Amino acid sequence: MINKLVNKIKVTGAPIVVGLDPMMKFIPEHIQKKAFAEFGETLEGAAEAIFQYNKEIVDNIYDLVPAVKPQIAMYEQFGIPGLMAFKKTVDYCKSKDLVVIGDIKRGDIGSTSEAYAVGHLGKVQVGSNAYYGFDEDFATVNPYLGSDGVKPFIKVCKEENKGLFILVKTSNPSSGEFQDRKLSDADNRPLYEVVGEQVAKWGEEHMGESYSYIGAVVGATYPEMGKILRKVMPKSYILVPGYGAQGGKGADLVHFFNEDGLGAIVNSSRGIIAAYQQEKYAAFGPEHFAEASRAAVEDMKADIAEALNHR
Amino acid sequence: MINKLVNKIKVTGAPIVVGLDPMMKFIPEHIQKKAFAEFGETLEGAAEAIFQYNKEIVDNIYDLVPAVKPQIAMYEQFGIPGLMAFKKTVDYCKSKDLVVIGDIKRGDIGSTSEAYAVGHLGKVQVGSNAYYGFDEDFATVNPYLGSDGVKPFIKVCKEENKGLFILVKTSNPSSGEFQDRKLSDADNRPLYEVVGEQVAKWGEEHMGESYSYIGAVVGATYPEMGKILRKVMPKSYILVPGYGAQGGKGADLVHFFNEDGLGAIVNSSRGIIAAYQQEKYAAFGPEHFAEASRAAVEDMKADIAEALNHR
Repeated sequence: MINKLVNKIKVTGAPIVVGLDPMMKFIPEHIQKKAFAEFGETLEGAAEAIFQYNKEIVDNIYDLVPAVKPQIAMYEQFGIPGLMAFKKTVDYCKSKDLVVIGDIKRGDIGSTSEAYAVGHLGKVQVGSNAYYGFDEDFATVNPYLGSDGVKPFIKVCKEENKGLFILVKTSNPSSGEFQDRKLSDADNRPLYEVVGEQVAKWGEEHMGESYSYIGAVVGATYPEMGKILRKVMPKSYILVPGYGAQGGKGADLVHFFNEDGLGAIVNSSRGIIAAYQQEKYAAFGPEHFAEASRAAVEDMKADIAEALNHR
Repeated sequence: MINKLVNKIKVTGAPIVVGLDPMMKFIPEHIQKKAFAEFGETLEGAAEAIFQYNKEIVDNIYDLVPAVKPQIAMYEQFGIPGLMAFKKTVDYCKSKDLVVIGDIKRGDIGSTSEAYAVGHLGKVQVGSNAYYGFDEDFATVNPYLGSDGVKPFIKVCKEENKGLFILVKTSNPSSGEFQDRKLSDADNRPLYEVVGEQVAKWGEEHMGESYSYIGAVVGATYPEMGKILRKVMPKSYILVPGYGAQGGKGADLVHFFNEDGLGAIVNSSRGIIAAYQQEKYAAFGPEHFAEASRAAVEDMKADIAEALNHR
């Protein structure tokens, strides 16, 4: 799956993942109205609106980008119907040959991490049958519990040729509160660097052709740290959130890429899925919101290409 | 809700939470057979078996203990039907007046953490209606992303009079890989201690009568660290996993309690729900598995009381 991701990045020329993080305030009124007319103002109605919104965006961008990243929290907040919309979104994106990164940020101890891994990336056994639960291609994982929380995910990834992106340095303002703490038992290097080293080690256990199946999450909002982490984990793909709405710019992104122009994939969520709400794309109007998303992907692709050409 | 939890601990005399972490290998054959006869060897069949298994255990222990802690991973591995069994379990336990701690270990940045908080503890808005998604009483939260990942949970907890248990020092063998690292910018104290201090600070924002709504998770397998953390977070309830199957003993637990005999609640999962598979309770047999669970709760209560009396 990492090989597929790298190949699709080469073919599309777009190291971009579109974050499918639907919030009701992003969904155009005509889609909400139609869903509510059918299901009422219920969790089922919200789930239907979310799925139709996602579908129209995906239909307009699937040929431009290699991957999508649905953020499960945005679905889980609508309970069971919301999670059904998450599953429908995963399946629909896969039918369009997109690589699906489940942004689930799960992580627990041994057998519990194994259950998450089985549910999201692998198959669960029921009597003599085996079933995929959510069946994403990649999942994001929280490393706070250490190796015996992460290794059950790696085990399932090996069985299924799937991969992970492990949180190393997150894009949010207070990520430094714990992640930046300096470790006296590691030459005063910060925790995120030590986590990055561990990601590189875990990555050796499951290598693809040129990159490992085990990648890392490093926020675009911390380009200097990205520069260091790029060297610490040369074979790990870096999933870079924080571009656009959170403040990360194209020029900040160059440090996350290797010399071969590969090694990073940049996420944008609301910058693309709610592009029609920005002044820049307002002319599309809510009816043509998904065309605005397509235009925003093309602009983002140009922004990153320009930055990589000028480094 | 923390007041209700403390009161129920006083009334039952049992600082015990039963971990409802069903694995297929724990579920007696007669329950599996009945569920599979109705739904086939499907995800729906597994979900039905899980719920019936949980229900019989709850019916046999609800008067003895204050709380249960369903581990969502064990349900999520069965996809949507599994999560429906999770929701049914939460609702059933609440109908028995048990405090329900959703062991979800979620955590993300700002608006995403808010979505998790809304989905598990609060209400989500759909048009002019508001709905509870999963509606647990407490949730476990991963702190790796820092304050802006945790504060959205606290905000919802305040609105709903609900609470959190934040991971500080987890019970698994490799928890020290990151959690025990010594911080040169914090007088060489370990990361878990600094996280514990932060939990105490967050706790001040949402106090109950004698304890905070914001508690901590500290593994029974690390009693010496528990002793320190007890002092670092005097007003935080400590949820203590790792008793029993993971190796924690009654005598190890005393350090997690305050002088008032309160301040900690000890989890046991397979030690109770799969008690009938232990030699000690084998005489109950699979047909009476839930009575074995009741006996195991009573033994655990005695073990903890004995340890607290002898400290």
